Amino acid sequence: MALALKGLEYEYIALNLRKDEQRASHFLAINPQGLVPALEIDGTILTQSLPIMEYLEERFPDRPLLPKDTSGRARVRALASMIACEIHPLNNLRVLRHIEDVFGADAEAQKAWFTHWAVSTLTPMEQMLAADKRTGRFCHGDEPGLADICLFAQLINNRRFGVDAEQWPTLLRIGAACAELPEFAAGVPDAQPDAL
Amino acid sequence: MALALKGLEYEYIALNLRKDEQRASHFLAINPQGLVPALEIDGTILTQSLPIMEYLEERFPDRPLLPKDTSGRARVRALASMIACEIHPLNNLRVLRHIEDVFGADAEAQKAWFTHWAVSTLTPMEQMLAADKRTGRFCHGDEPGLADICLFAQLINNRRFGVDAEQWPTLLRIGAACAELPEFAAGVPDAQPDAL
Repeated sequence: MALALKGLEYEYIALNLRKDEQRASHFLAINPQGLVPALEIDGTILTQSLPIMEYLEERFPDRPLLPKDTSGRARVRALASMIACEIHPLNNLRVLRHIEDVFGADAEAQKAWFTHWAVSTLTPMEQMLAADKRTGRFCHGDEPGLADICLFAQLINNRRFGVDAEQWPTLLRIGAACAELPEFAAGVPDAQPDAL
Repeated sequence: MALALKGLEYEYIALNLRKDEQRASHFLAINPQGLVPALEIDGTILTQSLPIMEYLEERFPDRPLLPKDTSGRARVRALASMIACEIHPLNNLRVLRHIEDVFGADAEAQKAWFTHWAVSTLTPMEQMLAADKRTGRFCHGDEPGLADICLFAQLINNRRFGVDAEQWPTLLRIGAACAELPEFAAGVPDAQPDAL
């Protein structure tokens, strides 16, 4: 979505996480952490989603993902981090597998786990967005940015576990505004070349 | 540590997380997420550790926490995010409590959980740092920055769970270099006003 918003062409190389392709030696040579995404650009390998987006923002400043004012930038980064640091690291496939392996968490327990962490963060996020005048059509004003990308991705993930966004009217509204943009529509799982 | 590196004076207000003081109404009014840290500066409340440090970097550029070149900035941010996104969110007190409540994880199971996520990230981090010429006395060159702050804090956390840093010689060396600086020494738990 960030690459699309920046209008950048890119080659998409799919890894099937359910088949552990991100742990294959050819990918570990690219990212020793064995995690996606990795972006090769200007002869350098970049890893970690938010740092990759910060790089794109610095290198291609048009169609900014962050506002100009320092305080607004901190707000957008904090909203993005709420999802990238407080939800996603707990709810991704490797953690769901780990609680299954270690604690025997079945599908229902994994759903409860996912829901717990999504709700714990998205409920205060709804409150923070609803209470702040800087919230506009998107998380910060009327142009989409870093926080919207994270939020939109999270709302899509939520659907896989039946977490209903109706309880968060502001998040739902912003998610709908994102979905109207082709750059976001192009980022949904079903639109990827390797979608099943 | 970031405030100290920037040479900024600040008032430290302690919350006892074991007594859930971060969930008290007066703090929820400051950060609806009920998580520390929060920094009040210039009449604004900032939340989330990395965005707070990015704010300090933009507002007080002296003694930089990030290098000047875009590629180096992406590297430092990625190293910081490895800890801030892949270890800390899984290993903090609220998650340890949750696996105890939901899965009955006792002290030994919590230690195994903590160790699993610390090792999963710090082992490839050791490899990435050791293989990269940009690594110096610190994670990136010979001046401390964003990644060193995260790493140093993680190495301290590790000790609480008996995770031995000897297995990661580069991390150990960088941690020792940090410990020599008064700005890092001032950031250890025992140096805080509310240390027991």
